Amino acid sequence: MVLTAGGLGARAEARCRELSRPPYSEDANALTRTYLTPPHRAAMDRIAEWMRAAGLSVREDEAATLIGRLEGAQAGPALVIGSHIDSVRDAGCYDGPLGVMLGLACVEALAASGKRLPFAIEVVAFGDEEGSRFQASMNASRAFSRRLSEVKLDVRDRDGITLTDALTMFGKDPNKFGAAAREAGSVLAFIEPHIEQGPVLEAAGAALGIVTSIAGQWRLKVRFIGRAGHAGTTPMRLRNDALAAAAEAMLAAERIATKNPAGLVATVGQVTVKPGAPNVIPGFAEITFDVRAGTDNVRDQGLQQVEAEIAEIAVRRGVGAEIDRVQNLPAARMDTQLQSLLKRAAKQTGHAAPELMSGAGHDAMMIADFAPTAMLFIRCAGGVSHNPAESVRSEDCEAALGVMLAFIDLLAAEHAS
Amino acid sequence: MVLTAGGLGARAEARCRELSRPPYSEDANALTRTYLTPPHRAAMDRIAEWMRAAGLSVREDEAATLIGRLEGAQAGPALVIGSHIDSVRDAGCYDGPLGVMLGLACVEALAASGKRLPFAIEVVAFGDEEGSRFQASMNASRAFSRRLSEVKLDVRDRDGITLTDALTMFGKDPNKFGAAAREAGSVLAFIEPHIEQGPVLEAAGAALGIVTSIAGQWRLKVRFIGRAGHAGTTPMRLRNDALAAAAEAMLAAERIATKNPAGLVATVGQVTVKPGAPNVIPGFAEITFDVRAGTDNVRDQGLQQVEAEIAEIAVRRGVGAEIDRVQNLPAARMDTQLQSLLKRAAKQTGHAAPELMSGAGHDAMMIADFAPTAMLFIRCAGGVSHNPAESVRSEDCEAALGVMLAFIDLLAAEHAS
Repeated sequence: MVLTAGGLGARAEARCRELSRPPYSEDANALTRTYLTPPHRAAMDRIAEWMRAAGLSVREDEAATLIGRLEGAQAGPALVIGSHIDSVRDAGCYDGPLGVMLGLACVEALAASGKRLPFAIEVVAFGDEEGSRFQASMNASRAFSRRLSEVKLDVRDRDGITLTDALTMFGKDPNKFGAAAREAGSVLAFIEPHIEQGPVLEAAGAALGIVTSIAGQWRLKVRFIGRAGHAGTTPMRLRNDALAAAAEAMLAAERIATKNPAGLVATVGQVTVKPGAPNVIPGFAEITFDVRAGTDNVRDQGLQQVEAEIAEIAVRRGVGAEIDRVQNLPAARMDTQLQSLLKRAAKQTGHAAPELMSGAGHDAMMIADFAPTAMLFIRCAGGVSHNPAESVRSEDCEAALGVMLAFIDLLAAEHAS
Repeated sequence: MVLTAGGLGARAEARCRELSRPPYSEDANALTRTYLTPPHRAAMDRIAEWMRAAGLSVREDEAATLIGRLEGAQAGPALVIGSHIDSVRDAGCYDGPLGVMLGLACVEALAASGKRLPFAIEVVAFGDEEGSRFQASMNASRAFSRRLSEVKLDVRDRDGITLTDALTMFGKDPNKFGAAAREAGSVLAFIEPHIEQGPVLEAAGAALGIVTSIAGQWRLKVRFIGRAGHAGTTPMRLRNDALAAAAEAMLAAERIATKNPAGLVATVGQVTVKPGAPNVIPGFAEITFDVRAGTDNVRDQGLQQVEAEIAEIAVRRGVGAEIDRVQNLPAARMDTQLQSLLKRAAKQTGHAAPELMSGAGHDAMMIADFAPTAMLFIRCAGGVSHNPAESVRSEDCEAALGVMLAFIDLLAAEHAS
């Protein structure tokens, strides 16, 4: 079976751009599309049109996930391709939607070829990966993958509207939210195509990449408590400068991550200094740490090293240090068999598709424990994401579609054998 | 001539505490006394009572400086002792007032002894050293020392009231502000006793210290411009982290100052990070630098070293660095002859009185170019200042008074010879 793309990859890219304007955005001049809003509804309706035109039967689950399904020659578990269609505020248009559009393009190419797969294929569009409206994210994919205990329906948006009320206003029955859970064994594989959101593929000169795992993450808040003092009257040797301790901890974390051969990353993104006057030695400094790695082992060792350095710095400088571990997100390994099928598909279609870790979280992270899961990354310009400047080449989308179709071909052959 | 203190030093300390409550404060539960306010008036009136009781003739100049004068045996320039009676918000009660009260105690001791000095002696209380009401400070001592070109009367307080209007409401004629300028040669010496506002004397186990110079100060704003990026998806080697560059600059400045044998101090008190999210690599970081030393030479060399390190860090890390020199306050040397008289006076009264630099600014800084000027520092607990916890021992105030009286004795002897 040979499937050809025939410009459908480029069309997938163009459809992301179409969905970046009102009525698909909350803002007239920027893309903001959050969970259970009218732009979310408008985008679902538009994608449903495209799904129906491609011959899919369309439904929505109680978590407002849009699902288009093409039955296979046999009953049984379905291949599911998809991603999310919600966005951050002032977003780029590819983070999420491109995965849905590429799934749709796969079905369109299959329909054009007239060939029927041995298994059903579904295209899904989750609605709350980013968590930009409620203080919660990935509830739709959590529901999909039976992680219902993790879903809190009483979270509120900034106007005080609960998720329960928002679901009701969207025409859903919050009491049936759990009905979005897929039956165990109903998903043959979940594949999420997604822009990389990082600079690795561009630096490697590769259009595509195969994700080995989604990084585990520790998030810390670290408070250094020193002694405020007059910037002019306190000699250097009599200081207990909380900010200087924090600065040293920042550089220690940077050094630990840079030296680590296994892709550990560590970031300080927020700093709070008190009293915060130019002529006062800071008595208090709070910094955040975001520590990630492709495996929990590397991540946890990295965290231990950072925490040990913090303790050493604090003792040496005579300041207090309080470490709060505010978030612990374990790593999600991608299915090795699906990875090797993707690798073969890439090779067949002439793409290098290097392996890489996903530093960002994705719906695939939620689904990986429920069904064999893989991700195909598409290069984006400058690694820029969560920004209107987000950009992908349409030829890279064609390449992604080609690899996806070859992958489906290989999966079908394996399924038959 | 032998003058004795007889508890007047302890009374000086107690008077500072008396002036820390309403009507001498704008706040019921904290000390805030700013320029040209009713609490400023109330404090002036109370101090004027004490001055009159001590036999001084009292006047106010057009900058609202309170002046009590005791004529000497001969006409000619006067010895002026004083400091300021305004405060920061939520202040301690000794920063400023103690110098005025010790000047007053000197006169009281002189009166008790019945001895007449060969020169006149004045006790002055300036009203705006801290600059807590207007965006300007030390206008009263600037006027006193003929630095009128530096005074801007159109500055406003946070309610929009100009200094001109505030002077008028206080019963002053703003057009006559310049009349506060003292005639050249009318001041024999200016002595400002003041709490140290730092931890040096306490660490040295000394009640008193003799100031060699008031530090020169550079204030910088330094902006690092890197590239924002996703904390998870950007490998360490592909980052241009503006905050990491800033952290390195902070530690470089700390190292440069600590290694400097001449008392250089460098402080980063403010940090602004953008975008400022825990999961985003900072693309922008702005930090303030406060660099001070007892001589401009040491200060300027320190600044050069810090700026050179910033440039090197920026180049090595591939980030931009913009340096704004926002303030340049040259150092003020204290008069060496007055210093040696103070030293002799301390020795006579059994005090070590080590030499030290003043890292903080003082009215004495303004006056040093106009008349021979010296400062006597009094130990304060923990080096704490600009804080209700500011604390001095009454026995240290007795010691200060003893040294001042011995100093006056020596100055009188010198004057006579």
